[in-house]
Amino acid sequence: MDNKQLTRHISGQFNAELEAIRNKVLAMGGLVEQQLEQALDALGTLDVELAQKVIEGDHRVNGMEVDIDEECTRIIAKRQPAASDLRLVIAISKTIADLERIGDACVRIAKAAMEKRSNNQQPLLVSIESMGRHATRLLHSTLDALARMDVESAIELHKEDAKLDKEYEGIIRQLMTYMMEDPRSIPGILDVLWAARAVERVGDRCKNICEYVIYYVKGRDVRHVSYEEMEKD
Amino acid sequence: MDNKQLTRHISGQFNAELEAIRNKVLAMGGLVEQQLEQALDALGTLDVELAQKVIEGDHRVNGMEVDIDEECTRIIAKRQPAASDLRLVIAISKTIADLERIGDACVRIAKAAMEKRSNNQQPLLVSIESMGRHATRLLHSTLDALARMDVESAIELHKEDAKLDKEYEGIIRQLMTYMMEDPRSIPGILDVLWAARAVERVGDRCKNICEYVIYYVKGRDVRHVSYEEMEKD
Repeated sequence: MDNKQLTRHISGQFNAELEAIRNKVLAMGGLVEQQLEQALDALGTLDVELAQKVIEGDHRVNGMEVDIDEECTRIIAKRQPAASDLRLVIAISKTIADLERIGDACVRIAKAAMEKRSNNQQPLLVSIESMGRHATRLLHSTLDALARMDVESAIELHKEDAKLDKEYEGIIRQLMTYMMEDPRSIPGILDVLWAARAVERVGDRCKNICEYVIYYVKGRDVRHVSYEEMEKD
Repeated sequence: MDNKQLTRHISGQFNAELEAIRNKVLAMGGLVEQQLEQALDALGTLDVELAQKVIEGDHRVNGMEVDIDEECTRIIAKRQPAASDLRLVIAISKTIADLERIGDACVRIAKAAMEKRSNNQQPLLVSIESMGRHATRLLHSTLDALARMDVESAIELHKEDAKLDKEYEGIIRQLMTYMMEDPRSIPGILDVLWAARAVERVGDRCKNICEYVIYYVKGRDVRHVSYEEMEKD
């Protein structure tokens, strides 16, 4: 085997390793998406068993984070990637931290689904579920943008979070009215409040992941940068 | 200059670079600690000007995160660190993300300090301030453990977060009583609730940073690992 062949061989193996962690992060994203959907299903139908399943499933998300993170470190140490390869590894290692936290949000939502609710709290849960479905679509599209490293979609989706924030503000106002009308319901409604907040945070995490896609493609850190500046680039 | 000298020279420069990012992350930690103290001062005295100052100061925290993160990437690309050097860079790049989020928590606390409060909400703010001082001490000791890469302290501090969580639960209960007694106060108290939650999150962030110290020293990822397992190691 001559030297050139060897180089190609090593580089081919390196490519395979990069491809493998890309696939792993997408698989982790798929699992988190499923957790989010099931948590919302549980909330919508007050299905305690399903909620329990989501809570128990969180350790798989955590395990994937640790696993992929180790793999990223191993690649950096062994392959000494530069330029876009290094950016890919960094983008992935940041993405999994956000995915893990979306996993925690799913647990929070599932916990709200496990509380006994009076009938008059039903409309509240419907609002949260609907906001949650919005967040699920945002997560799905974000993972799509990540899979295709599609910077245009990432910029579009980055803006989508603001809509979710508006929806969240509306729900908080709604929750306040409920609490003021029936103060005895306050402890139960606080759970719903945490669930709403968890859904809102899913949007923030998606926004972060979009920033990593932009970082990978453009080589520029756009955290704390305004849309105007982002689009100008 | 012979080859050996050159190597020593390069390595000396590399050490200086590692030392420089270590110092930068500690400086960032110092700034965040100051932000947290001032946010709590503002909450304790309802000092709107000081609260405003904290809110405006957050962009400096953000700027430091982006700056140090770039420096970490540059070191990985240029120096191709391995073993403990690589772990140091990774630990730092994760630490700054948590510090940045503690910065966001300070903004949240400062915002609660800016609202007009009736006198009967004063005791609530005192509770949050006291919990906040606890969190500040925890942050200070965590940064200390980080500066000395002291794994024993890191393990001890890691447990401290549970105490903060207990304090937080007590405050939430207290907040609920207030809301139930005077439903009109609910909107104002929700701000206090967010501030309490922000303080509680500071503890979680400190716990994360302790995990990075353990990771750096022991070379082991202890996220999602129980204390028993951690101490057995």
